[in-house]
This record gives sequence, C-alpha cells and structure tokens, in this order.
Amino acid sequence: MTLAGEFDLIRDLLAKVNPADDTGGDGRKEVGPGGGGGGARGPGVWLGAGDDAAVLDGGRLVMSTDLTVEDVHFRRSWVTFAETGARAVTAAASDLAAMAATPVAVLISLAVAPPEAQAVLSDLGDGIKEALMELGAPLVGGDLSASPGPVVIDVTVVGAAEDPVTRSGAHPGDELWVTGVLGGSAGAVRAWREGAEPSPNLRASFVRPKARIKEARWLADQIHVPAMIDLSDGLAGDARHLAAASGVHIVLDPRLVPVHPDLDGEDARSLAMSGGEDYELCFVSPPDATGPRADEFQERFGIALTRVGHVEEGTGVEILDAGDGQDSAGGFDHFSSLDG
Amino acid sequence: MTLAGEFDLIRDLLAKVNPADDTGGDGRKEVGPGGGGGGARGPGVWLGAGDDAAVLDGGRLVMSTDLTVEDVHFRRSWVTFAETGARAVTAAASDLAAMAATPVAVLISLAVAPPEAQAVLSDLGDGIKEALMELGAPLVGGDLSASPGPVVIDVTVVGAAEDPVTRSGAHPGDELWVTGVLGGSAGAVRAWREGAEPSPNLRASFVRPKARIKEARWLADQIHVPAMIDLSDGLAGDARHLAAASGVHIVLDPRLVPVHPDLDGEDARSLAMSGGEDYELCFVSPPDATGPRADEFQERFGIALTRVGHVEEGTGVEILDAGDGQDSAGGFDHFSSLDG
Repeated sequence: MTLAGEFDLIRDLLAKVNPADDTGGDGRKEVGPGGGGGGARGPGVWLGAGDDAAVLDGGRLVMSTDLTVEDVHFRRSWVTFAETGARAVTAAASDLAAMAATPVAVLISLAVAPPEAQAVLSDLGDGIKEALMELGAPLVGGDLSASPGPVVIDVTVVGAAEDPVTRSGAHPGDELWVTGVLGGSAGAVRAWREGAEPSPNLRASFVRPKARIKEARWLADQIHVPAMIDLSDGLAGDARHLAAASGVHIVLDPRLVPVHPDLDGEDARSLAMSGGEDYELCFVSPPDATGPRADEFQERFGIALTRVGHVEEGTGVEILDAGDGQDSAGGFDHFSSLDG
Repeated sequence: MTLAGEFDLIRDLLAKVNPADDTGGDGRKEVGPGGGGGGARGPGVWLGAGDDAAVLDGGRLVMSTDLTVEDVHFRRSWVTFAETGARAVTAAASDLAAMAATPVAVLISLAVAPPEAQAVLSDLGDGIKEALMELGAPLVGGDLSASPGPVVIDVTVVGAAEDPVTRSGAHPGDELWVTGVLGGSAGAVRAWREGAEPSPNLRASFVRPKARIKEARWLADQIHVPAMIDLSDGLAGDARHLAAASGVHIVLDPRLVPVHPDLDGEDARSLAMSGGEDYELCFVSPPDATGPRADEFQERFGIALTRVGHVEEGTGVEILDAGDGQDSAGGFDHFSSLDG
C-alpha cells in the first residue's frame, strides 16, 4: 500500500464517523495521518483529530494514541520486548511533546499469545516501567487480551498543556527547524533488512528514541514557536502535514538537514529526509527568533537545533535539489515499512 | 490460561510498572482485571487503575480502554465488521456507564491486513459511526497500522462525571442489583461454537449490546448507588471485583438472577451467572432504596431491575445453592474464551 493509501484510509474513516465535520471553520480538507479532514469538535472537545493529539477540556488536556504491532513496527529478532515496551510508550509520548504538553497519565492495551504471555509481559513491563519513570507519568489503565498472532501494544497518553502548540500556526516568512539528527532509526531498519547489525548508535536511534518533552516545553516557553510536529513519518512527510494544517507552502533544503553521523552511503540524506520514527521535533520559528538561542538549547539539552527550510505562501512541500542526484522526497508508511 | 491467570498477569504488570503503588491508603491488594493492586496516583490522577475507568483531573474526567481482537473476542464467521466496530465502541463505553460518566470523546486504534484494509475499514467505520452517534461522542484521534494477523480494535473512551461511582463503595447491609437480563451474549457464543445459529435475540445480545449510560446516570442521580460495575466478565466474576474493591463479602442467589428468556437447557442459569459481555450494570443499593423505584426504571428504560444478592462483612463472593445441581460459579476469561 502506498503512503497516500494510508492517509486516504484514515481520512475516509474519520470522514465517515464524524460526518458533521468542523475542523475550525476554515474548511481545509487536506490531511495526513490523524489529519484534519475528519476532525471533530464535540462537548468539551477543543481540537479533534487533525493534530498530533486531540485537545480536550477547553485546551488543558491533550490525548493521543499510538499503536505498535509486531512485524510491522518491530521484529523480535531486532529488539527485546523490554526495548519494545519502552519504545511504544516513548513513541506515544512524542505526540505530547509535539503539542508542548506535559505527560499526566498513560493507558496501555496489550495483546500477547497465551503460551508466551508471562515472559513477554514481564519483559514489556520492564521497558514500560523505564519509559514511564522517564516521563514521570503513571499507568492508570489498560486492557489485556490473548493474541492469535502478533504482539500488539496500544499506548494512549494524556498530557496537560496550558497553551498547546498545534500544527496549524505556521506563517509565510517563518523558518523551519528540527531538533537532533535524523535518519538514525531508518538506518537501523535498513541494516536489519540487509541482514546486517546496525552500529550501536543507529540501533539506539530505533530502540530508544527520546520523547522531546522538555525540549518542546522550552521551545514553547522561550521561542513561542507557533507550530510544531514530531518526526514520526519522516521530515518530508511531516512537513507536508504542517503545510496542510497551516495552509502554507514549505520549502525544505536537503543540504541543511542534520544527517545522523553514523549514516553513510548514497542514501544517507534520503534516510534523513524521509526515514520515519526519529521522534525529533520539527517546528516553525519567527525569523531570527531561534538562531540566536541555538547554542543555549544545545548546551541545555545536548542536541542541536538546525534550520532546514522556510515557509512561503501556497500549499504543499517543495524539496530543493541537493545537487547529488538523490531523491529526497517520500515518507514513511507502516503499510509498507516492513514489507520491503 | 485460567481466569486467575489473566488476573495475575495484569496485577504483575501493574505492580511492576507502578512500584510506588498507592491505591488510596487502604492497603488492599486484591485485584481483578484492571484491579486495584497496581493502581497509581500521580499529578492530576485522582483514581488510577483499579476501577472500571481511571479518573483524572480531580475527578471530572474518566478514561478507559477496551481491546477487541479477532478470533479472541469475535470471529468473522459470526459477525460483520460493522457489527464488530459498533460492539467495540459500546464495550469501551460500558466502562464509562459503570462510573456513571457521560461520554465526551473517543480514540480508536485499528490494525488490519493491507489486502483487505479498504473493505474492512469501511465496514468497521459504519459500525463505529453508528455507535458514536448513539453515544453522542466524537472520534478525536487514533492510529492505524497494518496487521500481519488478526484485526485489532482498541477503543479509548473519555467521559465526564461530577461524582464518579466507583467499585469501592459497597457496605454490609446493601443490596446487590443488576439491570436487564443476563447470559444472552454467552448463549450466542455457545451456539456458534456448537455450529448452530443463535436465536435473533441471543445474537443481538452479543452483537449489539447497549452501554447503559443513561441508566447509570439515573441510578447515580436518583438512587445514589454507592458502588457499580459493568458486567463484562460475568456476574460471578464482576461481583468478585466489587467485593475486593469494597472490602466486603457478597452473597449471590442464582435463583434470583434474570436469565435471558431465549436461554434454555441445563446451563441456562450458569450462562447467566458466569457468561461475560452482557454489559449490563451491577450495583449495590442501600436497603429498600431501589425496590420501590424498579417499576419507574422499567417504564423509563424498558429493562428490568432485579435484586440478585446482598452485601455482608468479610471478603469474597458466596454463591448460594440453587438446588438444581448446576455449578453457577466461574467467570469469563478471554485467554480461554474462544479456545474451547
């Protein structure tokens, strides 16, 4: 299934179940995964589907769900179940970071095969515990089922934010920035697929990404970033979500993109542009607001801030020619991610 | 896997991930699914795992998650995917009813096999839409993944309640009541397992249960019921959860239990006592508070209220001898439910 295929399925589903769609009165219908096209507002719902997380209760509470399925999002020959448990929680929490929200509580549903349930749940629990302690949020609920097939982990996170940062605040003239380095997670998957063992740093990018909760809070408080998203689908794909939600045109310069230092080969930049699941932040900044503070950010959080493009009037994403003959477009699609 | 097995796995997992457990200072450690043993309170968390739903934000917001897995909770030869979508939403919403909460928003994660995704999602969406309209709550988020195996549906519901009704308010001298008739859902499963087609009414019990949202609100407002649970594991099993959470002994009289009228055969009463997934309400009532209002309830909601037991000092559940030689004990366990 193509990337567009996944988007379309979600849009169709949301449009179907929320027929009285009101995404805020702007009538925009472009969507990405969880995109705005099927957004809904109801009693107590301030911002429905169409951003990294739903915002409830007049804007104070933020919620998001992230599904992890064996042999789609991970293989047990690649990672331990403890690593998988931690990664599932972190991936969900990353959507809170994208809204500059602080984690409050977590619910986790697990499906495991009965014969191995005891061992798998124990290992998953080790990783879940580690990730929850890092987040500072308790597990408050969940469900458990037998699975006749793959291990399934669905993590719902609840966060608090006085003033959530959405995807829709980008304006022409803004700069586009990212945190950290990109492509590491996709580089690890590439190595595993080729039967190789990724470098320890690449492996760590896939196995133990960070939810940039504190970094996002700092960017919201110090830079007042007007729009933000976390990089789960890849920079090119997530920039498309930002552009669609904000009603702007985004120009990406592949030569500026911070490629993970362990990546080499022809497709290093392509992995950094389009590889998914780095869980770094991508945000827009008023002109010259972020640059002067980048050193301070790096000193405080140990990761870089890098300008990778800018915002213009229009629609869609434009990827400048990197002059190296590589195709830097594309995005990440779970329907095809592990089928290659 | 035994019933006790599932409980133990959840208790172990919750205990592991929430090491600094505080279930309210009463030190009780008995649990059921989502039971109190691993409950957690954190910032903004008023009541963690250990009831039908977690309560956040000082008691106003209620959340619960319910997982539906193909060939564990349903078979596609039994029900349509539209029916499955509606049932998954209703089963999750039933946990809101158990807390006397009003639905506010829903998040849904879906895993489906790519080759059939378009058709399955379309059908699921029809049923999800129907159930959401009935609840009056919008879909505000979710996730979508390929599945290499079964169709998986995880539904997270958010509700509002000024004064949530928990499982822990039962006192010696209280009466135990249920809504509706019991055993219909288990009767349908029994028929399917035997290769037969259940009666239309039994089939409807399984396929299209009701979340007793309005009924629960009425019971909370009019009767001030001090403790309530929804019947997902079966009356005997869910009474155990009530007894454990309230620190009381519950006496069940199988002769009083309202058996679904389409059930016949030797095990009719056993199905009504122990069959899961009727999603009726089981609540305790101060003496003589509910009886005089039962006709009014029946007239308003079209279903009966039936007293099925009472509360004493002590622990655990006692099932009186029905005098018919049937074993009325037991409960419902997804780890073995469809394996028989």
